[in-house]
Amino acid sequence: MAPPILSFVGRSNSGKTTLIERVIPELTRAGYRVATVKHAGHGFELDTEGKDSWRHKQAGASTVVVVSKGSMAMFADVSEEMKVEEVRDRFLDNQTDLIIAEGWKSEGYPKIAVVREQFEEVNVSLDGLLAIVSMKPIEAPVPCIDRNDIATLAKLIIQHYPKPASA
Amino acid sequence: MAPPILSFVGRSNSGKTTLIERVIPELTRAGYRVATVKHAGHGFELDTEGKDSWRHKQAGASTVVVVSKGSMAMFADVSEEMKVEEVRDRFLDNQTDLIIAEGWKSEGYPKIAVVREQFEEVNVSLDGLLAIVSMKPIEAPVPCIDRNDIATLAKLIIQHYPKPASA
Repeated sequence: MAPPILSFVGRSNSGKTTLIERVIPELTRAGYRVATVKHAGHGFELDTEGKDSWRHKQAGASTVVVVSKGSMAMFADVSEEMKVEEVRDRFLDNQTDLIIAEGWKSEGYPKIAVVREQFEEVNVSLDGLLAIVSMKPIEAPVPCIDRNDIATLAKLIIQHYPKPASA
Repeated sequence: MAPPILSFVGRSNSGKTTLIERVIPELTRAGYRVATVKHAGHGFELDTEGKDSWRHKQAGASTVVVVSKGSMAMFADVSEEMKVEEVRDRFLDNQTDLIIAEGWKSEGYPKIAVVREQFEEVNVSLDGLLAIVSMKPIEAPVPCIDRNDIATLAKLIIQHYPKPASA
């Protein structure tokens, strides 16, 4: 079964990356294999200049893969800006239990909104919204979780996406 | 059809990376979509410390994907040291015409030996050996190509792996 996609949405500098960074260990401790997918701005250098992989890519390879014991890196041309489900279908196989996407707020993925003080900071509908993570309590029709209450956030995610028994 | 794998083998510092870097443009000019696969030594940092992708991976994500317009990077845990055909089967789909591997000299892939002056510098059998690339002419039962004669090397590869008509 294709792993579910949960998107963390919020303005830039709202703290999405840090929040994801903090919730991943809670999920892995609960046995989840988590993949993350994020955007990089245009012109962002995905690899590091001068590395052999970078040199191969610069030379015109459409895909460069570096394998190491237990890990691998891949740098690839893709036809356009990929959606998360395309990334999932091409690269994230059945070795993933949950995909956390950073951004893609206009796609129909289930979402967690990351704000500072007000829900309106992020222009997103309530459709598919699982929770709001904020620095201050917010009146909302979905749970509002304090930004430092990572345990509660992880619990909500785990309840919403029970780990497949087969995994 | 799965793209063929051609391996460039030779001692470290024999110039494999540079040779691959120089032959790729000839192949892409001929219309090939080339993927490269290489080893990284143990403990080699595939990503760059401090990047968001690195932070997600450090936090425990088993796979981290960064997508940009037209390109993507992926950093993933794999169960052990992957063979090139596993990389191919999992990640390199029908958008690749030829896979150039750097190393893997003990696998049964067709090979090009990269040496300085003597074939014996690389401990590899003649089985599946397509050519030797050297700084000096070498008597051998396979073509010996001068290291700077990239055009001849590319031609040999193209003859051996005709571009699929469907591509």
